[in-house]
Amino acid sequence: QGILERLDAGEIVIGDGGFVFALEKRGYVKAGPWTPEATVEHPEAVRQLHREFLRAGSNVLQTFTFYASEDKLENRGNYVAEKISCHKVNEAACDIAREVANEGDALVAGGVSQTPSYLSCKDKTEVKAAFQKQLEVFMKKNVDFLIAEYFEHVEEAVWAVEVLKESGKPVAATMCIGPEGDMHGVSPGQCAVQLVKAGASIVGVNCHFDPETCVETVRLMKEGLQAAKLKAHLMCQPLAFHTPDCGKQGFIDLPEFPFGLEPRIATRWDIQKYARKAYDVGIRFIGGCCGFEPYHIRAIAEELAPERGFLPEASEKHGNWGDNLSMHTKPWVRARARKEYWENLKPASGRPYCPCMSKPDGWGVTKGAKELMQQKEATTEQQLKELFQKKK
Amino acid sequence: QGILERLDAGEIVIGDGGFVFALEKRGYVKAGPWTPEATVEHPEAVRQLHREFLRAGSNVLQTFTFYASEDKLENRGNYVAEKISCHKVNEAACDIAREVANEGDALVAGGVSQTPSYLSCKDKTEVKAAFQKQLEVFMKKNVDFLIAEYFEHVEEAVWAVEVLKESGKPVAATMCIGPEGDMHGVSPGQCAVQLVKAGASIVGVNCHFDPETCVETVRLMKEGLQAAKLKAHLMCQPLAFHTPDCGKQGFIDLPEFPFGLEPRIATRWDIQKYARKAYDVGIRFIGGCCGFEPYHIRAIAEELAPERGFLPEASEKHGNWGDNLSMHTKPWVRARARKEYWENLKPASGRPYCPCMSKPDGWGVTKGAKELMQQKEATTEQQLKELFQKKK
Amino acid sequence: QGILERLDAGEIVIGDGGFVFALEKRGYVKAGPWTPEATVEHPEAVRQLHREFLRAGSNVLQTFTFYASEDKLENRGNYVAEKISCHKVNEAACDIAREVANEGDALVAGGVSQTPSYLSCKDKTEVKAAFQKQLEVFMKKNVDFLIAEYFEHVEEAVWAVEVLKESGKPVAATMCIGPEGDMHGVSPGQCAVQLVKAGASIVGVNCHFDPETCVETVRLMKEGLQAAKLKAHLMCQPLAFHTPDCGKQGFIDLPEFPFGLEPRIATRWDIQKYARKAYDVGIRFIGGCCGFEPYHIRAIAEELAPERGFLPEASEKHGNWGDNLSMHTKPWVRARARKEYWENLKPASGRPYCPCMSKPDGWGVTKGAKELMQQKEATTEQQLKELFQKKK
Amino acid sequence: QGILERLDAGEIVIGDGGFVFALEKRGYVKAGPWTPEATVEHPEAVRQLHREFLRAGSNVLQTFTFYASEDKLENRGNYVAEKISCHKVNEAACDIAREVANEGDALVAGGVSQTPSYLSCKDKTEVKAAFQKQLEVFMKKNVDFLIAEYFEHVEEAVWAVEVLKESGKPVAATMCIGPEGDMHGVSPGQCAVQLVKAGASIVGVNCHFDPETCVETVRLMKEGLQAAKLKAHLMCQPLAFHTPDCGKQGFIDLPEFPFGLEPRIATRWDIQKYARKAYDVGIRFIGGCCGFEPYHIRAIAEELAPERGFLPEASEKHGNWGDNLSMHTKPWVRARARKEYWENLKPASGRPYCPCMSKPDGWGVTKGAKELMQQKEATTEQQLKELFQKKK
Repeated sequence: QGILERLDAGEIVIGDGGFVFALEKRGYVKAGPWTPEATVEHPEAVRQLHREFLRAGSNVLQTFTFYASEDKLENRGNYVAEKISCHKVNEAACDIAREVANEGDALVAGGVSQTPSYLSCKDKTEVKAAFQKQLEVFMKKNVDFLIAEYFEHVEEAVWAVEVLKESGKPVAATMCIGPEGDMHGVSPGQCAVQLVKAGASIVGVNCHFDPETCVETVRLMKEGLQAAKLKAHLMCQPLAFHTPDCGKQGFIDLPEFPFGLEPRIATRWDIQKYARKAYDVGIRFIGGCCGFEPYHIRAIAEELAPERGFLPEASEKHGNWGDNLSMHTKPWVRARARKEYWENLKPASGRPYCPCMSKPDGWGVTKGAKELMQQKEATTEQQLKELFQKKK
Repeated sequence: QGILERLDAGEIVIGDGGFVFALEKRGYVKAGPWTPEATVEHPEAVRQLHREFLRAGSNVLQTFTFYASEDKLENRGNYVAEKISCHKVNEAACDIAREVANEGDALVAGGVSQTPSYLSCKDKTEVKAAFQKQLEVFMKKNVDFLIAEYFEHVEEAVWAVEVLKESGKPVAATMCIGPEGDMHGVSPGQCAVQLVKAGASIVGVNCHFDPETCVETVRLMKEGLQAAKLKAHLMCQPLAFHTPDCGKQGFIDLPEFPFGLEPRIATRWDIQKYARKAYDVGIRFIGGCCGFEPYHIRAIAEELAPERGFLPEASEKHGNWGDNLSMHTKPWVRARARKEYWENLKPASGRPYCPCMSKPDGWGVTKGAKELMQQKEATTEQQLKELFQKKK
Repeated sequence: QGILERLDAGEIVIGDGGFVFALEKRGYVKAGPWTPEATVEHPEAVRQLHREFLRAGSNVLQTFTFYASEDKLENRGNYVAEKISCHKVNEAACDIAREVANEGDALVAGGVSQTPSYLSCKDKTEVKAAFQKQLEVFMKKNVDFLIAEYFEHVEEAVWAVEVLKESGKPVAATMCIGPEGDMHGVSPGQCAVQLVKAGASIVGVNCHFDPETCVETVRLMKEGLQAAKLKAHLMCQPLAFHTPDCGKQGFIDLPEFPFGLEPRIATRWDIQKYARKAYDVGIRFIGGCCGFEPYHIRAIAEELAPERGFLPEASEKHGNWGDNLSMHTKPWVRARARKEYWENLKPASGRPYCPCMSKPDGWGVTKGAKELMQQKEATTEQQLKELFQKKK
Repeated sequence: QGILERLDAGEIVIGDGGFVFALEKRGYVKAGPWTPEATVEHPEAVRQLHREFLRAGSNVLQTFTFYASEDKLENRGNYVAEKISCHKVNEAACDIAREVANEGDALVAGGVSQTPSYLSCKDKTEVKAAFQKQLEVFMKKNVDFLIAEYFEHVEEAVWAVEVLKESGKPVAATMCIGPEGDMHGVSPGQCAVQLVKAGASIVGVNCHFDPETCVETVRLMKEGLQAAKLKAHLMCQPLAFHTPDCGKQGFIDLPEFPFGLEPRIATRWDIQKYARKAYDVGIRFIGGCCGFEPYHIRAIAEELAPERGFLPEASEKHGNWGDNLSMHTKPWVRARARKEYWENLKPASGRPYCPCMSKPDGWGVTKGAKELMQQKEATTEQQLKELFQKKK
């Protein structure tokens, strides 16, 4: 059954977690470029992560093609593009996802995301051509449906949906925005309306904000759709990091990004609360983005097991709300084998010299950045390329 | 070259990270029993984790045989023992570790750890027999050396060393104690002395405490050895969790154990500081235990690259102190591409409703535990088994 | 010169601090009733506090008549009313304030605040009569101007202004609201408009929220007045507690109110920042409310000394930005004798087991409250009186 | 009855709180010099504070003669000494304390503290002469007993006791040390032994550390005395600041000293816990030092009211464990009118951008201090004087 059949039937569809962050920690992705050449270089590592998500309950395996547009690979990871073509990366990603999906009952979703071309103010034709190039691979490899995700500007997201829609496959579209809306000031409700009008059957948000913020943003999208009398399925794939302190542009601007986010990592219980909230808001495609490890996905599947009627495979290695601790030798650890314990725990950071919240960086905010602002002219893509050459 | 040749030559030997915690999050180990039946059930997952540690710089791959003594498998995981014999689990662990070790330049270490038999006050003969049983597998599979690790009582650790020593292979021994010493009140220095006298060539600590505490404990061991005019190599494999607030029995007693430890996870920079401190204290076998993911091991290898003269393979996907951020589009993120930034960052928890430290649980400490104390008689191994049967 | 002459001339007028909190800590006011019978019982203590504020730079001494309406004294503090009449309390308050004001160059302001009668849904006539009664004392004692302060409902505040206005004296009016507006949902801007239309020459907020929130609320009032093309002077008298976590009803609902607020107390440097912000927003009557001690008022006067051209008397015992530490024996303490040090200090709480933020209580929020909600019918004033009788 | 009669009879004697910190906030003492010229300049302010402590339950009023030795007044506050003689300051202090003591049932204690002369390595004769000078005033004014307090070196404290002892009046002696002992490394137990041998009838600690640390230090003193088979009454007057993070030299080295300590201020409930602990350890002279406001002293008196059989006067304005909240209009505030609520409250700081603990400064610790270390030669008293002249 396809994604729309499932959602139309009222099923809960569980997405997968964050590949770039998980594989960075495993040693296969470079933070900064964040490009997915691992599909060619280390397919066994990508395959294993897909398997873990499948086992944890994912019904959708997204091809590991984040930032795999040609312009991105050339730009950020041109050391890669020299050796590995964009085409090969995308093809390998599809093959691996399909191989693992066939081991269970999962769908394969081909994904595109925002392009450097758009940020460099290149025109619609050029940006659409980049999406078209990836789409060709997805069609050749016959993915089950398509996701346009991680867009900061609804304008570009609409272009992506328009391209993907031509394929005839169902299209989902998620933006990496919070309740304040996209970078041009378009509200979540309006973003949703534009995406649905462009042809998306599923809309929502992914990345950049914590679960609570993302659910709230999707709720605003739902309101916007209702006001416009439009219908679409809702989708949510947040960070597994607590980000109560981030600004409009999300966690990138937090001083801890990307190498000091550990204290913000969500527990499995945080994720169970998220799954419940998302469900209550009416979201039926529930997954995760950066920071989501397999056990976080399993937490979604376990929280919603009463509604779905079954547990994921990986739950054979996990007790309900810690009940596997009931066999512990120490009685005070046995006392932790219950829902109220974990539900109410306020976990300590073990870091008494650290604060609880940070002020996000941004133009003009940090001293260090001030000097760099004088190099602002260096930020065009061309200049970044030169910067990189010089560094080599 | 064997482990002793390397250490005798003054080499830094990098250990691996924590299997039970990493595989629990990946869906293959059950928290509570913590037993390693995954070596038989899901060898590909165990293999992949070994590979990631190898790639991150580990020179030693420990067989995934934690808690794989027969009595433990029967007791905590008897649902397993019914299907999978202790023998098979240990054999498979050796085969997988060897297979991956051969992909690089790593040694395989067979590991034994404390037994439920000892805690049940069974006698020396019985406890030694349990170690003997595992040792037989290690000898058949010809591991490179042996590690007796995770002992709370030096008495039992000495028994383990005595058994392992008979094999003729080099023996390392680490206790899961802090500066206050073992559960019978034997100081770290005295523990080290007893272990070396029993035949251990390498001594140190693993698990239960954060890096800072573990390095301090090994330093105390070193002092004890010097006072006794004994010589041994030093080893340290701490938690990758911050635990400034734990008591004598370590992180088990923290209210966050084991499902709410996320905010305590060490950053890569915390681990670089640990590697440097460990090195400065004279420790040359430097690895990790619970919580250590591949990128933490890589952090050890990167910190000590100047001393060792080379970087691990996984560093091809990692910049030195975040220098891969120098290509980021936003200048304030580029401003993070430097050592002083990450070295001085005090990462926020993103959890303003949570405290920084917890009071450890313990006999009589928690209210919930009080009632359970009345069930104290149920804590013998036999009764635990019955408890488990009843639950089924 | 009167208050309006000063403000019209562009002068900065500095208010005083919080009497009920300061005198509670000194032992003269009972938390809960918060009534000012100390004016009769311990005039020397009230006089001394006035003197300290005068010395710290206050240009306005408010009569200590908070909650001194007859209905309040009867209701909350009827143990008092039995002995001390409302009339005496108000008269004594005026006499003490005038005595101290004459020691310097300060104005005396007679103050009224919200009444239990309004909350008990009594009618306009009755509520106005209560204000009228206090006003008679203020007229007899010839205060310099009048302040209607601490109103949660603009409707009642307007009634108060109407009564006070009839006296012919200048009237200031401040509400204890945040940016969300009054308890009936009237926005700050609309509140300001109604108060000015009722006759207030000075409008603003006092109490319930921290300085940052109060300045923002007054800014919204200013916007409302500008939109309505009305003119008035602006006034701000916030808490000296940090309350980033409180809800619409302010600090009363924080679990720490009123006996655990210590960790939230503002430093003098926090107050200097507040004074600067208030000034920048265009507020010219700048003072404090609960939590403001004399040194907090001095901090306002010191921050704005460049604009005003003089320091308060109490600055003879205070260095500018800690420069009096330059004589300290320890060089690292001497290193604190500079503005950047104190400006940038993030003071530690010394409480690692406590969180940084609390969830405010409220109807249905707390478990304890739930049961009490069933006693909701007991909350009318009459029933409270009975409760009190029973307790005696 | 004198101090010794009371203590010998098993009475609990309650001390007073911290004058320099309280009067600094009220505008009469300058932080840095911390000298008590207010006794001459503003006797009404000193009198009022004494009265508040008396009313809160203090049985002992200490003359406000802290740092009032001639050398100190000359050195730190020579701007003062020019106008006001050491003699006058001490005399006025005695007169005010006696006047207020006569309003109740309190004793007057004359106090001396460590001298700059000792720190400047001047000799025993000179240091003793300074104490002698103050003692003359105390004898003339006929104080009830004498306290030598705030000594970092037991050697100097012993000299002080020897001088005071000659008067024939009872002598108490407290050091500002923690469990690590005095600045020369003498343990608390040894300090106590030396002080008792020198003639002190009461020994203990004051200032520099939080209540918990101070009680522990006095306990160590008690152990030392027991081991030496000596007898003395025990006394404790700690900070009302939480200082779990300070080093051997106490709160002076904390980055927040002295102008950012607000978040560390103890609640009344913290102080009730302290009073109970102190009592349980056997301490019978229980008071406070810097940070102790009148309501903190009242908390001691209220906690120990069951043992003493009466409440202090100021308790007429204070409910037992918040029971005065039982009349509040909001049920969730009424729910706070009970002991368990306040006993278990973990008060939030309201400062999510601040840490919970600080690293103390010290020689070579802080960057800023490093440069200042090069000016180390400037730290002798003579040079400080010159520094001061230059600044004028």
